[in-house]
Amino acid sequence: MTALQVQGKAARQAERTLAVASAAVKNQALEAIARALLDRQEDILAANAQDMEDGRANGLSEALLDRLALSPQRIEGMVEGVRQVAALPDPIGQVKHMERRPNGLIIGKRTVPLGVIGIIYEARPNVTVDAAVLCLKSGNAVILRGGKEAFRSNQALTEIMRQALEESGLPRDCVALVQDTSRQSAQEMMALTEYLDVLIPRGGRGLIRSVTENARVPVIRTGEGICHIYVQAQADLQMAAEIVYNAKCSRPSVCNAAECLLVHQGVAEQFLPMAQAFLQGKHVELRGCPRTREILGPSVVPATAEDWDTEYGDYIMAVKVVNDTQEALDFINRHGTGHSEAIVTNNYRVAQRFLDEVDAAAVYVNASTRFTDGFEFGLGAEIGISTQKMHARGPMGLEELTSTKYIIYGSGQVR
Amino acid sequence: MTALQVQGKAARQAERTLAVASAAVKNQALEAIARALLDRQEDILAANAQDMEDGRANGLSEALLDRLALSPQRIEGMVEGVRQVAALPDPIGQVKHMERRPNGLIIGKRTVPLGVIGIIYEARPNVTVDAAVLCLKSGNAVILRGGKEAFRSNQALTEIMRQALEESGLPRDCVALVQDTSRQSAQEMMALTEYLDVLIPRGGRGLIRSVTENARVPVIRTGEGICHIYVQAQADLQMAAEIVYNAKCSRPSVCNAAECLLVHQGVAEQFLPMAQAFLQGKHVELRGCPRTREILGPSVVPATAEDWDTEYGDYIMAVKVVNDTQEALDFINRHGTGHSEAIVTNNYRVAQRFLDEVDAAAVYVNASTRFTDGFEFGLGAEIGISTQKMHARGPMGLEELTSTKYIIYGSGQVR
Repeated sequence: MTALQVQGKAARQAERTLAVASAAVKNQALEAIARALLDRQEDILAANAQDMEDGRANGLSEALLDRLALSPQRIEGMVEGVRQVAALPDPIGQVKHMERRPNGLIIGKRTVPLGVIGIIYEARPNVTVDAAVLCLKSGNAVILRGGKEAFRSNQALTEIMRQALEESGLPRDCVALVQDTSRQSAQEMMALTEYLDVLIPRGGRGLIRSVTENARVPVIRTGEGICHIYVQAQADLQMAAEIVYNAKCSRPSVCNAAECLLVHQGVAEQFLPMAQAFLQGKHVELRGCPRTREILGPSVVPATAEDWDTEYGDYIMAVKVVNDTQEALDFINRHGTGHSEAIVTNNYRVAQRFLDEVDAAAVYVNASTRFTDGFEFGLGAEIGISTQKMHARGPMGLEELTSTKYIIYGSGQVR
Repeated sequence: MTALQVQGKAARQAERTLAVASAAVKNQALEAIARALLDRQEDILAANAQDMEDGRANGLSEALLDRLALSPQRIEGMVEGVRQVAALPDPIGQVKHMERRPNGLIIGKRTVPLGVIGIIYEARPNVTVDAAVLCLKSGNAVILRGGKEAFRSNQALTEIMRQALEESGLPRDCVALVQDTSRQSAQEMMALTEYLDVLIPRGGRGLIRSVTENARVPVIRTGEGICHIYVQAQADLQMAAEIVYNAKCSRPSVCNAAECLLVHQGVAEQFLPMAQAFLQGKHVELRGCPRTREILGPSVVPATAEDWDTEYGDYIMAVKVVNDTQEALDFINRHGTGHSEAIVTNNYRVAQRFLDEVDAAAVYVNASTRFTDGFEFGLGAEIGISTQKMHARGPMGLEELTSTKYIIYGSGQVR
């Protein structure tokens, strides 16, 4: 057996105990994890300092180093996150529907954990705790495979969690960290069908595509977001400009940020200069179609075909003038990634049509796409935003980490 | 583009219209299909007669020929099935949950179709109509790839459905039949990620395994069933014998039939002869562990390790005496396929434990595993029985062919 198979087998075994643990036991374990993270923060910071030193020596970008860095404040943030999850209702063991059938069988549908969840992510140590805790609360064992740049930090965090689990009477193997951070270990996880029930990639587009395309374990695809704002002819243009500015500029690196602005030709001459004025506040680079450039002038970079399919994650926005709503809908359904899409309009019929015909996880009327988030949607937590249609779509909270089983109480029925 | 890609692209286009079709339009189309199947039954029977002739010439077994054969009665059964699906409530466009958030956003979760569904199945023409109709009702386009032995029958059925769709104002490409029935077309479907949202294999174990292991399109695994009946020490033995007989003998070829009997050692001497007497009514071959053979004698075939992992689909049953419930649970969770599992007991605590700890789609107390079925569970229809945990588990009806999207009504909110 490979090292990963050994971990998988142990996780599968541990999961059987965790799956039937009461909410009280799971919450005690989460509280033990929270306390241990605080108690042992020196160890965590020391491990992280080594990762940071190596990262600097290896020339990691400032943005990557910032994601990698831990501090007492960030650890406190983690701990608060753990306690918030502990405070959420237990998603496991809920009977969603129960019915007495004509033959007297009593059939109920009960929520159960998915089993063992694999998470492949990049060099963000906060994901280690965040993802583990969501899995534990929903009764799932988890095998974490973080980026190599954060290995020492992840190792320290995972060992603390495993020890806290054991002290709370749950198997330490409910949480495991893959020790090999080479490309090969990710490949091996993608094929670990015997021990993994689900694989969730968290990170950039390249990682997610690679996992989605190569995994034999069922995958939940998350996060890729080419989101549009469509400003329709009957839009409140001031509201539209504020929404466009917010969707592009409030946090351009995240997946629910907007990448492309579509403007109805009837308001393009009036609206495009307004939008440009707002976006200049953050020096947003505009890449426009020919009609956009006719209106705004040659300071707008000509958009290429590639621009319509690019998730910039930066202060750049593609801009296109469309003839009508049909063209906007076709464009969004062709170039969008099924994440979040918004229309700004006061036309009732067009608003309803947009909600009906746009094929995405979250479709907005008169609001920023930036709200697509587990906390904003009231789920209390989030393990990612699914852009697929199977199993879960949109922000995934604890409920999306569960499956169901039918329980049937009989009295001797045969068929 | 390959022929399959052309079909995929057309299905993707057709699906956009179907996805927003009203229940009334979809039901009219289903009724048109029902009428057309009756009106054109001569064409169907003629095509089927050719398939049957080739099948006989190619030496198909009687069982396969029986599955392949159509008759006026069977066509009437199909038509009745179509009308039953038409009469079910529309699963699409239902808002499961809607909430006003503190910032005034009104967020709802609405059911939508999955998109384009691929079905790979064997030489059963009834699946062609059955699966297509369930997909249509749930707003999904469908690409059917049936076994080559039934190609002419499937072609006739599909053409009738496509024409009826068109006459009802829906795109004919909502239903398509793959024209190439070679192994290669199945392989190509498994990789058709651009045009297929989900792939559902229906058929024998070999087909399902091959699709599950090789597909890059998300798969819903169905149907493999190694189901156990555990007769616990405090069982009503008469009830237990009736349940064992029913689960094994009422229809041994189906996936919810039992393959293995586990008997607590405390009642084995009394129960095994009773069970044997019942099962002898259908000449069931028993394959037993050494303790079973000690009790029932050498007429019982010795079970090999392979027997514990075999779905016989026949009048054969593996039998094992276990020391206690823990051993039964471990055995079931190791050798079961996560389909349907039953305990017979009057011990309250053991019954609850069995419901908690057995990891399967359907877990029974004091009833036959044969009830795992969409109609028996009250779903009104069934496209298969999922043995995976993601997306759907157990019998899948119309609701399991849907996804969701969040619809958000705003009034200018930014974050």
